Amino acid sequence: MSLDTETSVKPHERLAEYLADDLSAVDALIRERMASENAPRIPEVTAHLVDAGGKRVRPMLTLAAARLCGYEGVNHHRLAATVEFIHTATLLHDDVVDESAQRRGRPTANLLWDNKSSVLVGDYLFARSFQLMTATGSLRVLDILADASATIAEGEVLQLTAAANLATTEDIYLKVVRGKTAALFAAAAEVGGVIAGVSEEQVKSLHTYGDALGIAFQIADDLLDYGGDTSATGKNLGDDFRERKLTLPVIKAVAKADADEQAFWVRTIEKGDQSGADLDQALAIIAKHGTMDATRAQALEWSATAKDALAVLPDHPLRDMLRDLADYVVARIN
Amino acid sequence: MSLDTETSVKPHERLAEYLADDLSAVDALIRERMASENAPRIPEVTAHLVDAGGKRVRPMLTLAAARLCGYEGVNHHRLAATVEFIHTATLLHDDVVDESAQRRGRPTANLLWDNKSSVLVGDYLFARSFQLMTATGSLRVLDILADASATIAEGEVLQLTAAANLATTEDIYLKVVRGKTAALFAAAAEVGGVIAGVSEEQVKSLHTYGDALGIAFQIADDLLDYGGDTSATGKNLGDDFRERKLTLPVIKAVAKADADEQAFWVRTIEKGDQSGADLDQALAIIAKHGTMDATRAQALEWSATAKDALAVLPDHPLRDMLRDLADYVVARIN
Repeated sequence: MSLDTETSVKPHERLAEYLADDLSAVDALIRERMASENAPRIPEVTAHLVDAGGKRVRPMLTLAAARLCGYEGVNHHRLAATVEFIHTATLLHDDVVDESAQRRGRPTANLLWDNKSSVLVGDYLFARSFQLMTATGSLRVLDILADASATIAEGEVLQLTAAANLATTEDIYLKVVRGKTAALFAAAAEVGGVIAGVSEEQVKSLHTYGDALGIAFQIADDLLDYGGDTSATGKNLGDDFRERKLTLPVIKAVAKADADEQAFWVRTIEKGDQSGADLDQALAIIAKHGTMDATRAQALEWSATAKDALAVLPDHPLRDMLRDLADYVVARIN
Repeated sequence: MSLDTETSVKPHERLAEYLADDLSAVDALIRERMASENAPRIPEVTAHLVDAGGKRVRPMLTLAAARLCGYEGVNHHRLAATVEFIHTATLLHDDVVDESAQRRGRPTANLLWDNKSSVLVGDYLFARSFQLMTATGSLRVLDILADASATIAEGEVLQLTAAANLATTEDIYLKVVRGKTAALFAAAAEVGGVIAGVSEEQVKSLHTYGDALGIAFQIADDLLDYGGDTSATGKNLGDDFRERKLTLPVIKAVAKADADEQAFWVRTIEKGDQSGADLDQALAIIAKHGTMDATRAQALEWSATAKDALAVLPDHPLRDMLRDLADYVVARIN
């Protein structure tokens, strides 16, 4: 994911500043746990991704949730490292599945080493994340992360089988998005509240916040693929169309398609028979049905859901930053 | 793994008969948990492997350990399904890593579907196994299985980096073997004792039994690759040599090599420059140093360790079958 825009001090930067000490502890833990005395390939591959410097949104969600709920122990570090390991493992596997050549502006691990290393080091990081979360001694936390892991993996398989499939519904799209982004955001925030021992209502609201934030972010990302400033996503305009991915602007347009439009989608998405002018034609059909606006409205709704969920949490500078983050992920489409 | 020989009633068959009711319950649980409402690809790929019918050694170790320790609940079914899911997931990923075309006498999933499906369905099964073990509510069990998962994954990466590497020591070989086989055997047996609430000494002995059984089996398997009845392993004589895998007969021969022999190993294993007569030459060097006998002795020692470990467990028909199983895995080399 990419959260860059033109804003001067971005909410995730303010979070990183506020949580600097915690993030250092998490980084130290990540480095300690990615080591392997006998298999140096493991830290090499892991460091390649970790050093590329993602924005650490997932670990920050755990740290922020724990801190704003008054948590004072060390389990938030373990859990922040856990979610970062799970995320890194899924990136390694995703790049194999997508046959990607670039990630975070650098060649992918599957390109620098090989697919084998990416698959096996990903498995190792999953196992390490599992050890880290077990060390918290909280069965509730394990339950949440086990469910999130299953949602992530199921969403990835769904994405594979939904590709180029015009029967993909908004419901399936939502499951894919939860798998790609929202399930880990939700679990990351939720476990922060669980270890802090807050009320059920507050735990649930942290889950809702992460879930809605992830969905809003992903819908905005998919929307930008059909218009807007693509420098923010790191993708080129129309990449999803060319890769025959079913995202909301197209799913909504397919649902409203007349016979000619239906034939167009069958040819370009289902059969993958595309020529240079087809993207413009796709954009024209999308514009005709107003599905960009409908998609935008949906992203804003999820952003509002995320912000509303914060209401039951303690008044705290971190809560304000989380609220700003929910605005920020949709700012680039608004 | 393959455990077939000419014996009439094999110990794993007697175990399967004795544990028939438990195994049915485990099968039902596996079918229930491999389902996915939205992603039919998941049960398709999983069923392809599960229906091919492995010998279910790992789930039987859990069931046998729990039963012989007097366990009466349902968590042994969950844990037996857990270890079978972990095993199935590693097979899916292994076949991608090894670019295998055959598994259990059928085309591999990566061949029938694609590498993507094998990677992602493997991830899904890991996540499902994690949910199943969390449902037992035992942090001790989670701890054991988390550590086993890390050992498995680290062993797989080690195997990758040890291939064609003449510097591979017996110590590294043992770590690879634990990752490939023994760590999951050990954990499978150990968690059966843990849920039964037996003494620390007995839990430890179950771990030792599974660990030693797995190592004995794997050394025997590797030995057969350089001589003996290869129908038992499903491999062709010399496969490991041609694939430049460092196993005990070669590791021991490399350690004793004179200058000419060293040059031979560098050319054939390290550089992979092999011609038709090289396998015979390798066998001659191995025979000269007697490393087949030394390897055989080591396998028998591990088998004896496995049997000795059973002494502190209750006298029980299942204990006798486990003892016979430890004899059986080395019977084909003795």
